[in-house]
Amino acid sequence: MPLDPKRTIAELEELRARTGDENGAWRVAWTDVWLDARRWYKEKLAALPVEVHEDAAGNLWATLSGERPEALLMGGHLDSVPGGGWLDGCLNVLAGLEVLRRLHEQYRGRPPVTVRLVDWADEEGARFGRSLLGSSAFSGSLRPELEKDRRDHDGIRLEDALRRCGVDMDRMLEAQAERQHAAAYLELHIEQGPVLLDLDLPLGAVLGTFGVERHAVTFHGQAAHSGSTPMNRRKDAFLAAAKMAPEIYAITGRHGGVSTIGSCTTLPGIVTSVVETCRITLDQRHLDADGLARLLAEAKAASERFAREGGLPPPEWETIWRIEPIPFHPDLIELCDRAIREVVGTSHRLPSGPLHDAAEVARAGIPTVMMFTQSLHGISHNRIEDTKREHLELAVRAFDRLADLTIDWILARTSAAGSAGAQVPASNDFAASSRKSMA
Amino acid sequence: MPLDPKRTIAELEELRARTGDENGAWRVAWTDVWLDARRWYKEKLAALPVEVHEDAAGNLWATLSGERPEALLMGGHLDSVPGGGWLDGCLNVLAGLEVLRRLHEQYRGRPPVTVRLVDWADEEGARFGRSLLGSSAFSGSLRPELEKDRRDHDGIRLEDALRRCGVDMDRMLEAQAERQHAAAYLELHIEQGPVLLDLDLPLGAVLGTFGVERHAVTFHGQAAHSGSTPMNRRKDAFLAAAKMAPEIYAITGRHGGVSTIGSCTTLPGIVTSVVETCRITLDQRHLDADGLARLLAEAKAASERFAREGGLPPPEWETIWRIEPIPFHPDLIELCDRAIREVVGTSHRLPSGPLHDAAEVARAGIPTVMMFTQSLHGISHNRIEDTKREHLELAVRAFDRLADLTIDWILARTSAAGSAGAQVPASNDFAASSRKSMA
Repeated sequence: MPLDPKRTIAELEELRARTGDENGAWRVAWTDVWLDARRWYKEKLAALPVEVHEDAAGNLWATLSGERPEALLMGGHLDSVPGGGWLDGCLNVLAGLEVLRRLHEQYRGRPPVTVRLVDWADEEGARFGRSLLGSSAFSGSLRPELEKDRRDHDGIRLEDALRRCGVDMDRMLEAQAERQHAAAYLELHIEQGPVLLDLDLPLGAVLGTFGVERHAVTFHGQAAHSGSTPMNRRKDAFLAAAKMAPEIYAITGRHGGVSTIGSCTTLPGIVTSVVETCRITLDQRHLDADGLARLLAEAKAASERFAREGGLPPPEWETIWRIEPIPFHPDLIELCDRAIREVVGTSHRLPSGPLHDAAEVARAGIPTVMMFTQSLHGISHNRIEDTKREHLELAVRAFDRLADLTIDWILARTSAAGSAGAQVPASNDFAASSRKSMA
Repeated sequence: MPLDPKRTIAELEELRARTGDENGAWRVAWTDVWLDARRWYKEKLAALPVEVHEDAAGNLWATLSGERPEALLMGGHLDSVPGGGWLDGCLNVLAGLEVLRRLHEQYRGRPPVTVRLVDWADEEGARFGRSLLGSSAFSGSLRPELEKDRRDHDGIRLEDALRRCGVDMDRMLEAQAERQHAAAYLELHIEQGPVLLDLDLPLGAVLGTFGVERHAVTFHGQAAHSGSTPMNRRKDAFLAAAKMAPEIYAITGRHGGVSTIGSCTTLPGIVTSVVETCRITLDQRHLDADGLARLLAEAKAASERFAREGGLPPPEWETIWRIEPIPFHPDLIELCDRAIREVVGTSHRLPSGPLHDAAEVARAGIPTVMMFTQSLHGISHNRIEDTKREHLELAVRAFDRLADLTIDWILARTSAAGSAGAQVPASNDFAASSRKSMA
């Protein structure tokens, strides 16, 4: 039986019925519903001659051994946010399963390269606030000792929740061993934004994930009676902070990327006083490191200018989080674009605003690309998240085509590396240095 | 012994030591400290031949009967906010006491008109959130049935707290009887703002109290992922609300008055989402009713424009509180100005941003004026509230002078009314209509 995208949709619906309700999906990582989703998924895998195991970080691997050890990886995540969408994460897991089935059938169980499908553990970080948990153990960027004491709403420690699911945090980084022979990584995901919707396109090739600068900015003014303080005598912290709102639109207008003021708090925060202290959070994202640096520098300069205009000292900037932009592999972006064009005629290249496990894989030096499919409403992390059935079918077809093109690319690189003697793909430094087994 | 302003300062210091600490004054109305302050004050009154009683609203009256029943009223309040300043309210009570002493001595206990000093009950509303409580009972604007169920932080009901102090809320409005024969009202207060400080003047004549428009404005946008939502696709409630901050400065720049955005809250209020709902509070004040209406109308128009610019529906406006401007009596403003000029050489006329008991008295139709003395730091409701000792002495002298000028004015009006037969000063409609006893 050839590739059957309708089966993927049926399986997505099956999973939705099993692990969700009218309020959305409840496959929060390390919970019983998530474990049940994995149990269901393993039953599906059992029909294939794949080796299945969980790594030291709880990532679930299904490996279809090929003629060569070099591995094409495909990855997604069954876990969801509470009340999440039915496609976020699991679209790749089930589309990947369909690709495995097709490859198995076409190559009678032995494709030209090894093909591995991974269900990453805890992409969302919904329960403990640490996203990309499993994939960061795989990439080696995780520092488990800094995460162990995170607690969920019930006070349960992350370490204890993981132990219950068979994961020992002291050994999580052993998941790096899974990088052995990894030659390329593909991930299919819903866009979670409105770009493809606006363009009326079903699919797009992802250029990489945005770098993020996330800061809290606190302006310090002076509380003063709202009735007795003339306007020109005020040191109004809200005025200075508020001027940042249109300014970040102007700055991104000049340099691209996105900037968001997501919260604003005021002290004393009463109707009869000028605001003494105003704290805003600023989240800036850009695909290019220089662009991101420019967004940040101009926002800082503007904040100091607005403070000065209002007679305030320079505001405090406090880093909440930052990550560099992670561009995907240029060859794989080309292949992704080509696969989309072959299947639907038109492609579009776009950056990913949200982070994905693919970012961790790319950070580890493995050539990576993602494919996006259109999100209706441009919305995700919400029960109304949806994608047209016809687009889901096209996504499975294009992703399958991308898998074939990537297998050819791996074979070409392998043989090029082989003919160049000891040359090893830059993409697989870990496996190469730890085992020197790459051809 | 003639007027002794140094005695007033000594008594203010005595009260401060008795009812405050290093964190400020603690004479919160209806508490033991406040009752103790009144006990102390009554001991001071006992040295004078004044009739002392509390009215049905807990206001404490000291009456020095004069040759005529027409009464000059002076008023202040011993109650303070928690951790309040040492002068706010009690400056008038003790300066008024000194004026009573001087009049008693000068006229051997019988001044040309009756002179009454009132210590209003609960000007601040610090414990139950209802300011001008006693004076609004006097003016008749209070609706006791709407206030009874207010509770303090410990859950104690306003009605119960007042009963403990001998006030029956069902009878509070009987305090209106105290308006009988009232011919003028004077109040000396610290400015609580920086206007006189900036002008380097010790004293000013108050034109009236600002009218207030107090509203909450809620903008409704759309939550969206901070990473995946392009800037031009956002419906950013914070952006629209933030534009109001510089706008209210521009509007007051055109029309005068003051406008304050005192608080801003954002929902969902997380770093990774565009703000869906943003609520700000707006407090606008103007001495002129037309000016106030213009401030409000232009702010409303601007809020709708900013919402439209951001693709949002018109914001919701919700009235928190409003009061019309209360202009003081033009004759008394002249007299106040003159008294100040005679004592310190230069005067300045200014509106009062904060409300005062004087506003309630003026609302009741009694000719009213206030005198302000400079506040160091332009600050009040704070333990650092202060006024130079030399300015306090000048304030007592000028206020005493104003009392004399006002007595002459009352006498002139009384004789003019008398010579015109049944004509009654418009200022005393209540007493006139209820007793028809005005000469």
